[in-house]
Amino acid sequence: MNLQIDGERLVSEIEILATFSEAAPPVVTRIVFTPADLKARAWLKARCEEAGLTVRYDAIGNTFARWNGSDQSASIVGTGSHIDAIPNAGKYDGVVGVLGGLEAIRALQRGGFRPRSSIELLIFTAEEPTRFGVGCLGSRLLSGTLLPDTARKLIDRDGASVEEVRASAGFKGKLEEGKLLSGYYKAFVELHIEQGPLLEREGIPLGIVTKIAAPASLRISIEGAGGHAGGVLMPDRRDALCAAAELVLAIENAALSSGATDTVATVGICEVFPGAVNSIPSKVHLSVDIRDTDLQRRDAVMHALDLACKTISAKRRMSIETEVLNADAPGDCAPFVIDALSRSCTKHGLKFTPMVSRAYHDSLFMGRIAPVAMLFIPCRNGYSHRPDEYASPEDIAKGTLVLAETLAMLSA
Amino acid sequence: MNLQIDGERLVSEIEILATFSEAAPPVVTRIVFTPADLKARAWLKARCEEAGLTVRYDAIGNTFARWNGSDQSASIVGTGSHIDAIPNAGKYDGVVGVLGGLEAIRALQRGGFRPRSSIELLIFTAEEPTRFGVGCLGSRLLSGTLLPDTARKLIDRDGASVEEVRASAGFKGKLEEGKLLSGYYKAFVELHIEQGPLLEREGIPLGIVTKIAAPASLRISIEGAGGHAGGVLMPDRRDALCAAAELVLAIENAALSSGATDTVATVGICEVFPGAVNSIPSKVHLSVDIRDTDLQRRDAVMHALDLACKTISAKRRMSIETEVLNADAPGDCAPFVIDALSRSCTKHGLKFTPMVSRAYHDSLFMGRIAPVAMLFIPCRNGYSHRPDEYASPEDIAKGTLVLAETLAMLSA
Repeated sequence: MNLQIDGERLVSEIEILATFSEAAPPVVTRIVFTPADLKARAWLKARCEEAGLTVRYDAIGNTFARWNGSDQSASIVGTGSHIDAIPNAGKYDGVVGVLGGLEAIRALQRGGFRPRSSIELLIFTAEEPTRFGVGCLGSRLLSGTLLPDTARKLIDRDGASVEEVRASAGFKGKLEEGKLLSGYYKAFVELHIEQGPLLEREGIPLGIVTKIAAPASLRISIEGAGGHAGGVLMPDRRDALCAAAELVLAIENAALSSGATDTVATVGICEVFPGAVNSIPSKVHLSVDIRDTDLQRRDAVMHALDLACKTISAKRRMSIETEVLNADAPGDCAPFVIDALSRSCTKHGLKFTPMVSRAYHDSLFMGRIAPVAMLFIPCRNGYSHRPDEYASPEDIAKGTLVLAETLAMLSA
Repeated sequence: MNLQIDGERLVSEIEILATFSEAAPPVVTRIVFTPADLKARAWLKARCEEAGLTVRYDAIGNTFARWNGSDQSASIVGTGSHIDAIPNAGKYDGVVGVLGGLEAIRALQRGGFRPRSSIELLIFTAEEPTRFGVGCLGSRLLSGTLLPDTARKLIDRDGASVEEVRASAGFKGKLEEGKLLSGYYKAFVELHIEQGPLLEREGIPLGIVTKIAAPASLRISIEGAGGHAGGVLMPDRRDALCAAAELVLAIENAALSSGATDTVATVGICEVFPGAVNSIPSKVHLSVDIRDTDLQRRDAVMHALDLACKTISAKRRMSIETEVLNADAPGDCAPFVIDALSRSCTKHGLKFTPMVSRAYHDSLFMGRIAPVAMLFIPCRNGYSHRPDEYASPEDIAKGTLVLAETLAMLSA
């Protein structure tokens, strides 16, 4: 088979998709079920149909575009990613895996390949947590990680529920029908930009992901006592920000001393109440994000955090409450899918390295119902989730070529 | 003279003034030049005019309500406080000195007193630093502590300047005209709740302030590096919130170890950018408030803070910039005004104690152009700047009675 990627067309499609945005170029903001997202979906459906794929949607708007194989009783080979983008984002996160997946299929078609297993391009709904506070909404529902009853209770900042916004976006049916059976996919491969600096730093064009880090999100509420910044003497104070400061450092320290560089912990939000120059902080809310490729190690950080809360709460005579918003298990990629990716790289003479994904992806949840692996390409300076996110046309083409080869291998 | 305070009316006026608020009762939020503040001012002007006082405003909106004395060439006896309130505050801070001052004048009128020196009720603009980051805006301008050119450069969170908001609130004229001459006031007395627990703890109804603590306000900007909460490893991070946490604890420690209980330090604001669950904080802004009755000891805390900034900035490889917004000197009250207050207490058989004010007040700045003293009444648990701030009707009436007697003594 003569496998040729049309890199020029692919890059021009990435540029077109970037124009469906709530912000002016080069900024991409494409929140799920907004007009920008719906226009992008319509444009993408037309491209899939042009390629002869059969398009269907499930109740949450996950999009399945299938190239039928010769053996329709065989499990399907899947690929895909997402097109939603956080506010003030770039063009490549998710999109490379969606448009690269489509181009991989077209390249196989042009090369005269005839799949035995059907090949399906899957575009996940709401990988980003922007609108409903939960990342990977589509793949969580597909994999049964999120129960439909829980999903139905999610509301956005304006108080609109998942049920309302998906209905007004035209996605009907019961969320229960969205769950895929184990075995539906024979294998699932996601092409993605690295969102970290390692490939670029090493000068290697491709990374094959063997593990996907597990995120845990917590919300911590600290309640001390307020008062006038002049009037209350230091020994009488129960300053919630001082307690928060100790907690922030305890979290940092727990991640630093886990014994592995794969452990990361971040306090991304610190809201101080009442937040006035001359008032002692009475309340603080923190959001904490802890990730690791190893579940035990991550849970050890959560345990250290718990202990710190108890110690600080006793010492400073204040209430500290912790709510675990989610605590997903890390995912291992499937050896035979990793192997197919490696052999495809080797076949095309492309250097690759095994690596872990420190960001999490829809593939983490797909891994619960299917053998998965991911293929990373470099992105400049490791930048992602910002307008200057960039992947070169050459790297995108290389990733797409290896993806096409792998899909062929898996569906033969 | 038969001096009778109408405590019932005074308390009901305090309740009415509390309804002019941006928040629902019992919370009072009354930021300078907002609709709530302007409505409160209009209501107050009507009450002053009912009492036969002549009301004028200066360019920044300081309100002067004068009861003309028989000798209009004599220096004036002043009293007053402020009505603006920080977010989520209570009913009494400032208000007791304004409505108590008005009731003191009415009581003198009812008692048939005829002042020789005019008696003036002064309602200061923006004692609280909420909107423009500078406390005592009105009294700083009156006393020449803040130059009009500096005041004109102040902007609020929405980018609106002092000049814009005072003009749209209807206060015209040049800020330069607001400066009062030394000698304009013969004496100035401010009635206020203690905002600390000492009077209540000792069971004494009145405190006569001999010294006002010196506040210093600083704004600290920490700039590290952002990034994806999953993608950047711990040793590569320059997390601005972790640096801020160390600084918060260093400031607390410096105040705790100053060697005197009069030293207090507070970080009241901590703003984190970008402030997203899965983003490493790239920037943090802190506001710091340091107070002491002793200038050297306060400056030692500022010095310790400076050292901590240098150490943390070097250790964490990030820029930490400190801007001193103000660093006022502590104020001494005038012996003859203290004496008038003491004699008034004694005359009415009321127990009192000399004390220092740990909070700062417009009187600190008025003290630069006039002999001042302050009269404190207890507040429950020492609470202030919170919705459950409370002073009893009995204590308010006692304070108002002593204020009236003192004004009579000073203006006779």
